Amino acid sequence: MKTLLLPILFLGATLGLRAEDGHRLWLRPHATTPVTVVAPTTSSALLATAKRELQQGWQGSAGTTVTLTLKKDKAIKYDGFRLNAQGVQASTERGILYGVFELLRRQQTGQAPAAGLSNPSYEHRLLNHWDNPDGSVERGYAGPSIFWRKDSALVVTSRDKTLWQEYARANASIGINGSVLNNVNASPLILSAEYLGRVKAIADVLRPYGVKAYLSVKFSSPVLLGGLKTADPLDPAVIKWWRGKAKEIYQQVPDFGGFLVKASSEGQPGPQDYGRTHADGANMLADVLKPHGGLVMWRAFVYSPSDKDRAKQAYNEFVPLDGKFRDNVIIQVKNGPVDFQPREPFSPLFGALKKTAVMPEFQITQEYLGHAIDLAYLAPLWEECLQSDTYQAGPGSTVARCTDGSVYRQAHSAMAGVSNVGLDTNWTGHDFAQANWYAFGRLAWNSNIKSAQIAEEWLKQTFQNAAGTNQPATSAADWNAKFLTPVTQLMLASREAIVDYSMPLGLHHIMSATHGHYGPGPWWAPPGMRADWTPPYYHQAATNGVGFGRTKTGSDAVSQYHEPLASQFNNPATCPDAYLLWFHHLPWDFKMKSGRTLWDELALHYDHGVQQVRQFQRTWDQAQPYVDAERFGVMQNKLRTQSGNAVVWKDACLLYFQQFSRMPIPAAVEPPMHTLEALIANDTPPRPPRQP
Amino acid sequence: MKTLLLPILFLGATLGLRAEDGHRLWLRPHATTPVTVVAPTTSSALLATAKRELQQGWQGSAGTTVTLTLKKDKAIKYDGFRLNAQGVQASTERGILYGVFELLRRQQTGQAPAAGLSNPSYEHRLLNHWDNPDGSVERGYAGPSIFWRKDSALVVTSRDKTLWQEYARANASIGINGSVLNNVNASPLILSAEYLGRVKAIADVLRPYGVKAYLSVKFSSPVLLGGLKTADPLDPAVIKWWRGKAKEIYQQVPDFGGFLVKASSEGQPGPQDYGRTHADGANMLADVLKPHGGLVMWRAFVYSPSDKDRAKQAYNEFVPLDGKFRDNVIIQVKNGPVDFQPREPFSPLFGALKKTAVMPEFQITQEYLGHAIDLAYLAPLWEECLQSDTYQAGPGSTVARCTDGSVYRQAHSAMAGVSNVGLDTNWTGHDFAQANWYAFGRLAWNSNIKSAQIAEEWLKQTFQNAAGTNQPATSAADWNAKFLTPVTQLMLASREAIVDYSMPLGLHHIMSATHGHYGPGPWWAPPGMRADWTPPYYHQAATNGVGFGRTKTGSDAVSQYHEPLASQFNNPATCPDAYLLWFHHLPWDFKMKSGRTLWDELALHYDHGVQQVRQFQRTWDQAQPYVDAERFGVMQNKLRTQSGNAVVWKDACLLYFQQFSRMPIPAAVEPPMHTLEALIANDTPPRPPRQP
Repeated sequence: MKTLLLPILFLGATLGLRAEDGHRLWLRPHATTPVTVVAPTTSSALLATAKRELQQGWQGSAGTTVTLTLKKDKAIKYDGFRLNAQGVQASTERGILYGVFELLRRQQTGQAPAAGLSNPSYEHRLLNHWDNPDGSVERGYAGPSIFWRKDSALVVTSRDKTLWQEYARANASIGINGSVLNNVNASPLILSAEYLGRVKAIADVLRPYGVKAYLSVKFSSPVLLGGLKTADPLDPAVIKWWRGKAKEIYQQVPDFGGFLVKASSEGQPGPQDYGRTHADGANMLADVLKPHGGLVMWRAFVYSPSDKDRAKQAYNEFVPLDGKFRDNVIIQVKNGPVDFQPREPFSPLFGALKKTAVMPEFQITQEYLGHAIDLAYLAPLWEECLQSDTYQAGPGSTVARCTDGSVYRQAHSAMAGVSNVGLDTNWTGHDFAQANWYAFGRLAWNSNIKSAQIAEEWLKQTFQNAAGTNQPATSAADWNAKFLTPVTQLMLASREAIVDYSMPLGLHHIMSATHGHYGPGPWWAPPGMRADWTPPYYHQAATNGVGFGRTKTGSDAVSQYHEPLASQFNNPATCPDAYLLWFHHLPWDFKMKSGRTLWDELALHYDHGVQQVRQFQRTWDQAQPYVDAERFGVMQNKLRTQSGNAVVWKDACLLYFQQFSRMPIPAAVEPPMHTLEALIANDTPPRPPRQP
Repeated sequence: MKTLLLPILFLGATLGLRAEDGHRLWLRPHATTPVTVVAPTTSSALLATAKRELQQGWQGSAGTTVTLTLKKDKAIKYDGFRLNAQGVQASTERGILYGVFELLRRQQTGQAPAAGLSNPSYEHRLLNHWDNPDGSVERGYAGPSIFWRKDSALVVTSRDKTLWQEYARANASIGINGSVLNNVNASPLILSAEYLGRVKAIADVLRPYGVKAYLSVKFSSPVLLGGLKTADPLDPAVIKWWRGKAKEIYQQVPDFGGFLVKASSEGQPGPQDYGRTHADGANMLADVLKPHGGLVMWRAFVYSPSDKDRAKQAYNEFVPLDGKFRDNVIIQVKNGPVDFQPREPFSPLFGALKKTAVMPEFQITQEYLGHAIDLAYLAPLWEECLQSDTYQAGPGSTVARCTDGSVYRQAHSAMAGVSNVGLDTNWTGHDFAQANWYAFGRLAWNSNIKSAQIAEEWLKQTFQNAAGTNQPATSAADWNAKFLTPVTQLMLASREAIVDYSMPLGLHHIMSATHGHYGPGPWWAPPGMRADWTPPYYHQAATNGVGFGRTKTGSDAVSQYHEPLASQFNNPATCPDAYLLWFHHLPWDFKMKSGRTLWDELALHYDHGVQQVRQFQRTWDQAQPYVDAERFGVMQNKLRTQSGNAVVWKDACLLYFQQFSRMPIPAAVEPPMHTLEALIANDTPPRPPRQP
């Protein structure tokens, strides 16, 4: 029955008969007009894709002729393109495809067809999938992997291919040109011949959409998979094993992108196990891939359980290695120095590595921002990081400019986002989480686009003319006023609301691990757990105050930042409120810029977060006439659950910290509706996180 | 160890060293002055109690002589008393004791020593304990029974006696003169020789405090305990068995008060099992007890699973029997026609039985008002019922006057309250639930005292000069302004807040039975459950409206009320909002007196309830300086939990009813923070309630 039913289901999807279940993402079907496409060749699969997209999506004047022109042009960088009166011009076939999608996007979002050049900020725009060979997804909240199956079935079905194609098309539409197909906590299995067969099948489906396949590799694969006695990167047998493996991969996937490596981190093996440096390890793999044109993305996410300040360690380990990496190595650095928190200052490695290619890693999946339950539009978080000025090469040395080749020479540039995609019908588990996939692609293409523009683009493509609503009868002005504007505002405020109700004023890492980092856990510290995995390590709450002292008289993490930031962060009077408790341990009655005590300010922030979510609920409720019943109801329920979660966060943190502050909760704050005892009891006996 | 430790603990208690754990109730120790007591005799245990209380509690001028005078006086009713310059005068020893407690109460609460007469409204002022021989308490939220033990141990310990004495003293201090020692769902065991031995022990401890012992009896005891073939009340063998049993009881307890009977109700056996009437059954037992001076309290709480309106049945069954009961039978009628809901109109039996003694039954234990978690001061509920005008003998025929002998001749009058007492240190599980025990006693003594006065009396005795606070340094004016006034207001508003967040506008019986009637369950209707035990039977929510139609065109329950009430209730324009959905099934857009739709009004009531609890929290937080740390913290946590419960009620009911109303929740209402799905899922698979 199953095999008989599937083709029918997918036929429905192809004809646009599918309900508004979110599966079509921002590429929902719409009325089109005929277009003539002139392409330079008919043999290219990529150009065929471009042509098909134009024909299936054209909304311009009927009978227009669009010419696709492949032509070298010094002004066009990487896969950039030019739009002109004739159509699209580019240096690469990918560039043509991206130009076509830009044309269609402008039509769909009601923008004038602009002539001009569009170059990507980054050469490589990558999704990192934390997908395991058993089909599970680490920090995945949208169902199992789209690439791997629980039963380790490696046979490729037509359903697999359809899904991969839809996935590749979505990526192409926003300029994403690479996918790391498996978890950074990598299984050695991925490099086995059997799994490489499936990698080839995936790569074959992604290729016509310009998406390259990459793999995460386990550094000890030569031992675990190859049967060698060592994985020492300087050992000739090890090098030989990797060379053979690379050759095997490139035979299957000629345009294979390269390796992503998490080494010597959180129990993962690495070169340090053999007395070698990160440079020794990365360079060995880089040398192996070099003849094939492959890249090594080497993660800087390293810290030891014994160090006094986890936030300092990546900097301490990697800065001394600056200049020692091959030019096809890129150091992949998380946006902040700890771990994808709702808010962190930028990682001090940005701009500090001056002779090494560095790429930002963002987390699209909402590990610390409400999973697929809470609404968190993340573009503002990423924009905040990318536009942060490091001052490392003078004012204006933003994180974006320090990583895209503008400030330092980089043979390659890239941006990575940890994907939020899974087998759920709507791909991301949460309809609005699709906006984060979209925004990541758009920002990787152009790190200067504003979050608001991205949100509007996405909302228009994702919700305009939703089935069952009175659109398109509704006027555009009405839709803009009653849906687009308020919902854009909701999206733009959503991340700050989460910061407020979970970790305001620079607090960080105070979630419980019991519920997979969803809820609060300032108390969370199971016996024997390494301290730097527990919230008390980060909040340092005591009767004398709260916050992590990272000033010059503390851990001195401030000194990893270039002046004037080091001095600014070091002084509580000049440190931005948003980072205050990140850098300072301050007494509860510390007088804030507002004139309030730190305790009152903290309580008001928590309460404001709660009230914000309630406003989001009202905004969404009022948007009901403009949304299909299916997505309206799902989102309404998710916002309700988020509203409850916000209160749990507020109550848990205020009641926990109040034990130390011994100050009353201000009367303006909504009184707790949970007891600390019940909240801790609900945070069931913690199990230690996955160990290597 | 245990037996060694106990006497020490109780010594501490005796000396007033006990912390503010609530065990001393409203009888907390305080500084006293010497007093000389002149008593008419030294051989009376009751007078000895009175003398001891005066000596242990006197706060008047040092060296005063108080004379206790036993003297017949036609103006003194029952156990009433006169206070005069010399002391206390009464017709009975109990009257002396009550006068002494009144003297001491006036001293403690700062009232002038008033001369004058004080007569009780009711002759018998009774607590009904729903305690089972296995130590459990039906609808008890304060631990196991103080009378019976889980292991059926019938041996009486000195700890038992101390506790019973403390219990008796508390009752005496507020005029309660009888206790039914076991559950109305009675075990036949209670009449066995073994259990009667313990009944005697209890009665012996209660007697010096003027508290008589009563028992609930199972109507089929002659079969279950006596081994007879029948319990037919007209069967001579049955009558003989009861006569023998009565004799046995009175040999052990010469002042035994009588029987409480729940017959032919909710599966309990009764005279109807043998084709006899309630009158046949009650009169047989009344005849048996008459020679000993005992009473029969026969409950009118009867309803069949098949009737169309449970609210009408007690009236239908008992009104035809009016005048057929012996004069030592009292029909015990719950305040409302259904079952102790947060709000009901008064039972139409009040005033309708004109030739039969009737007594009101109130529920002190908070079965439907938040157990021992939520704060519900119940005096306003009881006051509302007692002051309701039945019009049955013209205007002014209040429930109080129809039951205390003022309107109809009654050989005996009584009021019963289902006790909230258990083994918990503070007796009632919730510090403020003590106020309900207190208020019940005070209202049974004088049904005209205002709820506010009772609250103030109780607060003064219970919280003034709390340990660890800055009292008595604080001025009385300050204490009144910062503690007494706001906390009295809190208490007075507490029951209406519960009505608002659980069952406003006349809704009733829409709680879930899964959590023992604590939380909401408008959906609660397990397969096979008798309809009149499920909320949909009561709320009748549908797309066409909500509410139980009890008008003349509906079940016609309105006609059980005397005019002008019948007409007033029958017309939605004149029916008070508070009873609207009790009597009417109305469309969701019905226009209320406020001009709002029924749906909006309902939603605003639910929200108001939630906001009220948050105000209670703020009031309590601000009262912190005036409360000992122990009771402050416990209450603060309970209010937090109540606050969460209020939101659960609001969300559950609004989301459930919204399925039918299909109207938006008004923007002024706090948006839900739970989903209906989660709320129903949390209401775990219901188990059928206890069956006979």
